[in-house]
Amino acid sequence: MTVHAEWTWLDGEFHRNVEVTLGEDGRFGPIDRAAVSPPTHPRTALLPGFVNAHSHAFQRGLRGQGERFPADAENFWTWREAMYGLVAGLTAESLLELSRSAFDEMRRAGITTVGEFHYLHHLQGEDLFAGDRVVLQAARESGIRTVLLSAHYTHGGFGEALSGGQLQFDTTDASAYWSAFDAAAAACGPNQSMGVVAHSLRAVPIDELAELHAEAVRRGHVLHIHVEEQQREIDECVAATGRTPTRLLLERLEPGPECTSVHATHTSGEDLEAWLARGCGVCLCPLTEANLGDGFPDRARMLRHAGALAIGSDSNARISMLEELRMLELAHRLHDGSRGAWRDGAGRIDRVLMDMATIGGAASLGIDAGRIAEGALADLVLVDLDSDTLAHVEPEHLGAALLLGADREAIIDTCVGGVWSKA
Amino acid sequence: MTVHAEWTWLDGEFHRNVEVTLGEDGRFGPIDRAAVSPPTHPRTALLPGFVNAHSHAFQRGLRGQGERFPADAENFWTWREAMYGLVAGLTAESLLELSRSAFDEMRRAGITTVGEFHYLHHLQGEDLFAGDRVVLQAARESGIRTVLLSAHYTHGGFGEALSGGQLQFDTTDASAYWSAFDAAAAACGPNQSMGVVAHSLRAVPIDELAELHAEAVRRGHVLHIHVEEQQREIDECVAATGRTPTRLLLERLEPGPECTSVHATHTSGEDLEAWLARGCGVCLCPLTEANLGDGFPDRARMLRHAGALAIGSDSNARISMLEELRMLELAHRLHDGSRGAWRDGAGRIDRVLMDMATIGGAASLGIDAGRIAEGALADLVLVDLDSDTLAHVEPEHLGAALLLGADREAIIDTCVGGVWSKA
Repeated sequence: MTVHAEWTWLDGEFHRNVEVTLGEDGRFGPIDRAAVSPPTHPRTALLPGFVNAHSHAFQRGLRGQGERFPADAENFWTWREAMYGLVAGLTAESLLELSRSAFDEMRRAGITTVGEFHYLHHLQGEDLFAGDRVVLQAARESGIRTVLLSAHYTHGGFGEALSGGQLQFDTTDASAYWSAFDAAAAACGPNQSMGVVAHSLRAVPIDELAELHAEAVRRGHVLHIHVEEQQREIDECVAATGRTPTRLLLERLEPGPECTSVHATHTSGEDLEAWLARGCGVCLCPLTEANLGDGFPDRARMLRHAGALAIGSDSNARISMLEELRMLELAHRLHDGSRGAWRDGAGRIDRVLMDMATIGGAASLGIDAGRIAEGALADLVLVDLDSDTLAHVEPEHLGAALLLGADREAIIDTCVGGVWSKA
Repeated sequence: MTVHAEWTWLDGEFHRNVEVTLGEDGRFGPIDRAAVSPPTHPRTALLPGFVNAHSHAFQRGLRGQGERFPADAENFWTWREAMYGLVAGLTAESLLELSRSAFDEMRRAGITTVGEFHYLHHLQGEDLFAGDRVVLQAARESGIRTVLLSAHYTHGGFGEALSGGQLQFDTTDASAYWSAFDAAAAACGPNQSMGVVAHSLRAVPIDELAELHAEAVRRGHVLHIHVEEQQREIDECVAATGRTPTRLLLERLEPGPECTSVHATHTSGEDLEAWLARGCGVCLCPLTEANLGDGFPDRARMLRHAGALAIGSDSNARISMLEELRMLELAHRLHDGSRGAWRDGAGRIDRVLMDMATIGGAASLGIDAGRIAEGALADLVLVDLDSDTLAHVEPEHLGAALLLGADREAIIDTCVGGVWSKA
C-alpha cells in the first residue's frame, strides 16, 4: 500500500510529491520523493506517528481528582496519596478498562507508540504480576505500539521498606524482577516489546540499580528512571547518600544512550551537562509537570542536546501530544518573557518540538520509529488540512499552526505498523 | 422549550434534576431545581455558554505565522509587525472569511459571546469603516452573540502620529469616532451590541481618553483598553506622562465596573489594588500572553477580586476556552512550584476558572449572560458525558476534569439566545 499525502514531514520539513510505501512487514518500503501521480490522500498532511515516551495508563482513572485544595494541601505529595487510593481499588477489569481508555485516547491524539512505565504489578485478589498482563492486553486491544517499561520497585523511600499501596509495586529482588520481566516478554504480542525501569532512587537502592542497568545493557534494553522531579527527592537522596540522584547514576552506572531520565526538572546544570554529554536522554512531561507544579527545567542545556529529548503524557490527566508541545513552548515563553523558547540554531521551534514527539521518543524507547524512512517502523499520523483549525494556514506555516493552534480535531487517523485504525 | 441535562452548572456546582426553560425572548424562563421528569438530554452536562471577552478576529489569519525566530527576533514587537503585514493585505472578502472562521471556531469551543475588540476600521479600496460592517456580518453569520468593542485610535505612540498600517485604524477625533460608533450600532443585528474601546494609552492620549470614558458612561457602555501587557509600554508612558498607564487612568477617569483593563500583566501591585478596589475589571488572555511571552500577572491581588476577572482569546492563535483556563491554571502552578493556583477560599479552582469564563466575562461586557438564571440571556454549552475524555469521571470531579482534561471533543453544541447551532 502507498500513501501520497499533499504534504509529508521528512527531515524537519513538509514536502510535496512524497509517496510512502507501507511494507508487508510493518515497516516502510521505499519513499519516493518525486512522485508524479496525484495524492492518494488529498487535503492531508502525513507525519510520523507521535511517540509518548512516558505514561502511567492507570492514572487516567484520576482525571479531575485531587483538584480541590483545602488549606495546606496544595503540593505534589498529596496528589501522590490520591494515586495510592486509586491503586488500592483497582481490579483486573477496571485496570483493563482504564488502560484501554488511555491508549485509545492516545491514538486519537496521534500517538502511535507508548512507553508504558509500569509499576502496578499486583492487583488485589489476582495472581502476582497480573497487572503486567492486563496492561499488555489493553494495549493490544487498542493497537498502539507499546514498550512495556517494567519497573523494579523494592523500597518505600531511602532506607525504608515498602508499605501500604506500594506493596502492589513490589518486585522484591533482581531474580523476581527478571523472572516477571521474562514472563511479560513472553506475553508480548505484535508491536509490543520490553524495556527496563528503576522506578526511582527512592524505590531502588543504587547498588541494585547498578546491577539492573548492567543486565539491561547486556540484554540490549533501554532503562528509564524518574529523576529529580521534586526538590525533596534530591534532598532526601543527598541526605541518604551524599550525592544527587543524577550524580549517583553518573558515578555508579556508566550510563549511555540507553538511559532516560524522566523529568530532570531540578537537575543541576553541572549534573545535567554531564548526563547529556554521555548521550543519555531526558523525557519531559509538560502537562503533568505543570499540573503538579514541578517547575522549569534547564532549557538552555537541554537544547544543546535536543536530539536526546522525549515527551511523555505521564499522568494522562490530559492526553494530547500537540498540547504537550504547546505547553512546553508556551510555559517557557512566559518564564523567559520572550518568544521562540525551544528553537534550534536556525530559529525553528517546529522542528525541535516535532522531533521530541517523534524520533526523540523513539530513541528513548530504543525502537526505530518516529521517522518516515525506508526500513523504519511504519507508524503514521494523518492530518486533515480541511480541519477548521487549519483553515487559512499556508504550507510553510503548517508545522507551527499544528503545534500552536490545533488539536485532535485535525487528526484523521493513525497507522501502527502499516495498519490504519479506521481501516 | 425546556432542557433537562443530567447535570447543570448552577452557582458553582453541578446539580441534578434541573430543568431550564428557554423563553421566546431569548432569555431563560423559570429554572426548576426539582424537576421530576427524566432528563431531556441524558448523558450530558449543561453550562452557561462561555464568554470570550477579548478577541481580534482577523488575527486568526496569522495562525502559525511569526513562529520562526532568526537571531534577535524573538520579541513581542516583531509579532506586531507581522500583524501589520496581514492588515495591509486584507480585503472585505478575506476579513469576512477570517472573522467568520474565528467565530465559528469559538462556537465549537463552547463560546457563545465574543467581545470583539475591533480596531481594523478601514480596508483598502472600501468605504471608511467598512471593517466594522464586515465584522458584524461575520458574527451574524456565525450566530455568536457579539459586543462590538469599537476602538478609538488616533496616535501611533506617545506623541506620535499614525503611520503605515495604523492608518487603517484611524478614528481621527471624538466626533468621527462617535459617528462611526453610531453607524455600527445601527448595523447591529439580533444578539449584537456595542461597547467602547480606547486601543491603549499609546494610541489615545489621556485627555481624549477621559472624554471617551465620560461619554461611554453617559451612554451606558463598557470601556475596554489594552493595559500594561509589555514593560516597554509602561516605560514609554512614564517617560511621556510621568505616570504608569493604570495610574493615569485612575487619576483622570474615575473608572468603575464599566472599565476593563486587558492584560494588566506588568501592572504594579499598588496600581492593580487601586484598580480592582474601584470595581474595575481585568481581562486575562492566557494563551496569547503565553505565546507572546508577556509574563505572569499578580495573581494574589487578582484573586481577591476574582469576580472582576474575564478571559479573552485575543490573537486567536488557538481557540479553546477550556485550554485558556487550563493554561492559566497550569502556568501559574509551574511559576509557583505548587498546585491549586486560582483557588477560592474553599480551595476550589473549578468555580474560580469557570466564573472567569462565564459570568466574569459577561460583567466585563456589560451583558446579563454567563449564568443560568431566570431572565438572563439564554446562552448555553452542552457537554457530552460519553466523550472519551470524560469517561470514568465521577460527577463531583466533572468540573475539574472538563477544565484540566477535556477540550472541544466533549462539546456537543452551543445555544445563543435560546437557539442551538445544530437545531
